[in-house]
Amino acid sequence: MIKIGILGNGTVGSGVIELLKKNTEYIKRRSGTEIKVVKVLVRDKEKHQDKNISDIITNNIEEVFSENPDIVVEAIGGLHPAYEYIKRFLQLKKHVVTANKDVIANYGDELSAIAEENGVNLRFEASVAGGIPILKPLQECLAGNDIRYIIAILNGTTNFILSKMYGESMKYDQALKIAQELGFAEANPDSDVLGYDAARKLSILSSISYNEKIDWEKIKTEGITEIDEVDINYAKLLDCKIKLLAVSSREEKGIYAAVRPAIIAKEGFLGMVDNEFNGILLEGDAVGQMFFCGKGAGKLPTASAVLGDIFDVIENKKQKPMFMRYEEAQVNTKWSKKAKWLIRINVKDINDAKKILINKFENAYFFEDNICPKDELALLIEIENENILENKLANLYKESNISLIKKLVILNQL
Amino acid sequence: MIKIGILGNGTVGSGVIELLKKNTEYIKRRSGTEIKVVKVLVRDKEKHQDKNISDIITNNIEEVFSENPDIVVEAIGGLHPAYEYIKRFLQLKKHVVTANKDVIANYGDELSAIAEENGVNLRFEASVAGGIPILKPLQECLAGNDIRYIIAILNGTTNFILSKMYGESMKYDQALKIAQELGFAEANPDSDVLGYDAARKLSILSSISYNEKIDWEKIKTEGITEIDEVDINYAKLLDCKIKLLAVSSREEKGIYAAVRPAIIAKEGFLGMVDNEFNGILLEGDAVGQMFFCGKGAGKLPTASAVLGDIFDVIENKKQKPMFMRYEEAQVNTKWSKKAKWLIRINVKDINDAKKILINKFENAYFFEDNICPKDELALLIEIENENILENKLANLYKESNISLIKKLVILNQL
Repeated sequence: MIKIGILGNGTVGSGVIELLKKNTEYIKRRSGTEIKVVKVLVRDKEKHQDKNISDIITNNIEEVFSENPDIVVEAIGGLHPAYEYIKRFLQLKKHVVTANKDVIANYGDELSAIAEENGVNLRFEASVAGGIPILKPLQECLAGNDIRYIIAILNGTTNFILSKMYGESMKYDQALKIAQELGFAEANPDSDVLGYDAARKLSILSSISYNEKIDWEKIKTEGITEIDEVDINYAKLLDCKIKLLAVSSREEKGIYAAVRPAIIAKEGFLGMVDNEFNGILLEGDAVGQMFFCGKGAGKLPTASAVLGDIFDVIENKKQKPMFMRYEEAQVNTKWSKKAKWLIRINVKDINDAKKILINKFENAYFFEDNICPKDELALLIEIENENILENKLANLYKESNISLIKKLVILNQL
Repeated sequence: MIKIGILGNGTVGSGVIELLKKNTEYIKRRSGTEIKVVKVLVRDKEKHQDKNISDIITNNIEEVFSENPDIVVEAIGGLHPAYEYIKRFLQLKKHVVTANKDVIANYGDELSAIAEENGVNLRFEASVAGGIPILKPLQECLAGNDIRYIIAILNGTTNFILSKMYGESMKYDQALKIAQELGFAEANPDSDVLGYDAARKLSILSSISYNEKIDWEKIKTEGITEIDEVDINYAKLLDCKIKLLAVSSREEKGIYAAVRPAIIAKEGFLGMVDNEFNGILLEGDAVGQMFFCGKGAGKLPTASAVLGDIFDVIENKKQKPMFMRYEEAQVNTKWSKKAKWLIRINVKDINDAKKILINKFENAYFFEDNICPKDELALLIEIENENILENKLANLYKESNISLIKKLVILNQL
């Protein structure tokens, strides 16, 4: 008999309870093991009274500890007290499965070390890309590969908003409101729309891929709050969409890692990842290019990943934790490859500005339809890397008072 | 020290040796284990004299047995003697990793049982979809799901040929010849172009997905040898491509399983899987729709999957073999869902035939451009299921001597 304690009965926790119930017989048949959910931790017992689990809910974490569960599913989210609970359970030699990207991005290495010292498992497949199996495939199936790059859509909220802006010509505020009404965005959407959620997931995914620790706070993170209908319309002119990409790649020295809105081909794999879906494109030196797509969040997709981890724990108790004590990587923040960019700048006199820009960027391309506001100019340029671009733009401002509104990299080969 | 014996030094075997060499240090760092390739079995020692492995090659299988390897990689392909070798190694309590879909599709259940009885592992990730991690994700990460359907492109040879026919308006024979010249098709291409290779892979994939044995010989298998430029051109008129799909789905009673050319949207995920790539679209009841894409064959992609299995064996020696002794499934061979079909028929008088067809298929749609040969007519119809369609077509022949040339199901929602 394997006893399971569940911390949290929200979206993820209740999904896990539902899936465990559905799979009780299957687990028994497959692993010869009975499982039982012995305690469910909630904040407010009154709110969960009606459920089937009324006899096992508690608002006191000590009651979960005293049940002595074999496996603990942490589904309360946030950094604290989730981190403290996970740590204490691991120290008590309990296996822990979590969907908590905040805790793993911040404390994954420390907690993995504690798990290893205590001979138990810490699993967190659901923390990145929800239901898509990606951490285990990377860590196990693709372990013979040096991963060259990852280009991914890891945040369903922003992808939903951008899909609405693209598909229904909505403004950002309006799309955000709908996302909030449908439960795809939180009341305070900052963590999603400013890119932090994607940065944490990219940090976990990249650390496992490159076997180096990519500190999420060092990842250059840009959200979608500044994306407007003008950007979307230029993307459409280019047969592209705008997506919030989480990108990392191995460079000669260090790892480039960034979360940034980018213009990508609408008919590529990533361009077809819409709404709440996530997608991950990567390249390994042996396996070549590979693409994974599925639901990145939601009750049952997340619970599906948690259940996969529970199977792992039940069937392979001696498995090593995923994060080893990696060396900290040098994290580079500028796009270092030759690329095309969409540049939007503030101008006073369009013809004057064009002359200056042609002089500065010899291959500047101006759109025939200037669909931006009248004191603005948009152009396409191709340039060796982002550093050169930024230097040129800074000089432009110094020399001629032309100022940048925004720059978006164009990755239309995906 | 883990001793590895490799059977075969062809595409897969030499790729595995190369990747093992590259990863020796990493395996040591990660698993604390030294690995050593102790023997490589080849058919003709003369052919492999120049290689780095000259001191460990042998053409005598008994020399591999007497080296007492811990893990054996079977990369000779074909049914015999691969099956006998694998069986004997398992009975000697040696772990076996293989890329051999023929052996696994035919003897996977028996060999898995032998592996289980002997407490060793039999792994075969590379047998389906080459480098794409799919069997382990299904068996482990998605284990909490009931898989509803799988729609996949599992054969790179036919996908390459169809891509050439579509992209460069080549005829089948011409595309096959190029595929052979480039090494994507064998001199005798029957196993690929007649769909048997895909059927074997679908059998393995489906058995693991539905936890029932899907006998590959019961899978309705149709190849691409009858696909011509007329089919391709009609697909283009519909904004679609023709792909050889390996499809299975859980039905009320039994499992539908078939390998068949079908018309699919060119801008869907599967429609974008071209050339030697494989793609797998599936749906789980918890996780929803999911898509995997990558290289389905080739030296290093296949070796990548084999290496993943080797890591598994090194790190989890007690893992259960993948195939359990499943119950044999009832395998259904007719498409049972409402769908549109492209129908091509032989006619004598086009106008007469149209009248008869409109009478028989009330929603028949005739193309404005009749791009088929002049004694032929193509139409689109929508119908409840393939049985009804076949009955109607049989009656058509009885009643009016109009005979079917071919029917292709249209799955443009993927």
